[in-house]
Amino acid sequence: MEEQAGVHIVKSYDEELEHLDQLIARMGVLAEQQLGRAMQALTKGDAQLARQVIAADEEIDALESEVDALAVRILALRQPMGKDLRRVVAAMKTSCNLERIGDYARNIAKRSLVLPDLPGQYGGYSIIERMAAMVGEMVGDVLLACQESDIRRAAAVRMRDESVDQLNNSLFRELLTYMMENPRTITPSMHLLFIAKNLERIGDHVTNIAEHVHVMASGEPPDPERPKRDNSSQATA
Amino acid sequence: MEEQAGVHIVKSYDEELEHLDQLIARMGVLAEQQLGRAMQALTKGDAQLARQVIAADEEIDALESEVDALAVRILALRQPMGKDLRRVVAAMKTSCNLERIGDYARNIAKRSLVLPDLPGQYGGYSIIERMAAMVGEMVGDVLLACQESDIRRAAAVRMRDESVDQLNNSLFRELLTYMMENPRTITPSMHLLFIAKNLERIGDHVTNIAEHVHVMASGEPPDPERPKRDNSSQATA
Repeated sequence: MEEQAGVHIVKSYDEELEHLDQLIARMGVLAEQQLGRAMQALTKGDAQLARQVIAADEEIDALESEVDALAVRILALRQPMGKDLRRVVAAMKTSCNLERIGDYARNIAKRSLVLPDLPGQYGGYSIIERMAAMVGEMVGDVLLACQESDIRRAAAVRMRDESVDQLNNSLFRELLTYMMENPRTITPSMHLLFIAKNLERIGDHVTNIAEHVHVMASGEPPDPERPKRDNSSQATA
Repeated sequence: MEEQAGVHIVKSYDEELEHLDQLIARMGVLAEQQLGRAMQALTKGDAQLARQVIAADEEIDALESEVDALAVRILALRQPMGKDLRRVVAAMKTSCNLERIGDYARNIAKRSLVLPDLPGQYGGYSIIERMAAMVGEMVGDVLLACQESDIRRAAAVRMRDESVDQLNNSLFRELLTYMMENPRTITPSMHLLFIAKNLERIGDHVTNIAEHVHVMASGEPPDPERPKRDNSSQATA
């Protein structure tokens, strides 16, 4: 009897940890999808798609609450140790970051609704498309690293964030110049700059997740510190 | 002997929880101070103070790592239950939000370094000062709510975030108009808009902390959802 109960608890504990991973994976897929769809809405001026992205953000928020509730239940009832404990803690930290990524995707969708005409005709838009493609790949890769507790993949993702920051700096300078030359480009350029900032922030959150993967897999904080190259806060035209 | 060991463990456990609270309080005081000093550097054009703020951000980052490490140790070795467990989880979530608040303060300090002349002469700056004062008070209040597990104070803080969002919306429209009228205001206005966005985001993180206080104190998620009124992503001039 006692052994059976023990087996039952062990199995159910594994199932709970498995379920936690599945919730994180689901959040990650949704966040990546939301970013892709928000960019599609922006590029094509597709207002219906933008509204779908805005509405779908609720699902990511609900998943975050579900992750946190399950994590707290596992901590309380299962008292995980070592790697399992780090896995639960990493899930809570990761859900927080994925929720923010979802928020930034929703914000891009919102801005797509008010960008006059299609943004493709504005200078600098090709840089935004490159940033979005880069960041989208980073989200996919960090999720893989997360699923496979892959420290090397996580480290590689962290390194790529620097290129996103550099693109954001170039865009900032370029758009400031356009705005000075032609005041009619000010409103769309402002929205494009905030969209680029959102993409840059998504890159930061991916970097945070990569760091949580490292801690989860190794028990140590990652080192050396990833160099930070976002200088757009110091740009002048 | 056994009883003594028991007493020793209980005392040390309480001390650990107490230390966790102290670390969060220290982070909070620093974050609030950083915001105040960043705004002072901006208003007075004090580059030396701005550089101090930028350098001091490291201390907040280090405290976040310390909170997380202690929280994981408590979870692993003490297996807290009920309210204690929620307190440890809330500390981890709160540290994450305070670290972001510190980042936004640092970003304001960075932008103060490149704002040509003093920003007080630009239209819209008084709105930013009001936003900063409001957000600074919210940070202080949510820390009090956190220390006293005060659900009502936490709820009051959440409600005030709406006013911050509304000020941000007004500022966005006002500055867009100035930029269109006079292209020479574009660069400073851009930085002011990003500063306002930073303040609005600090308000969001305060709101998150207020929600964690509610969960910690009551074991339930706060309800109803705080209304979100940041429409600056849909503004046109």
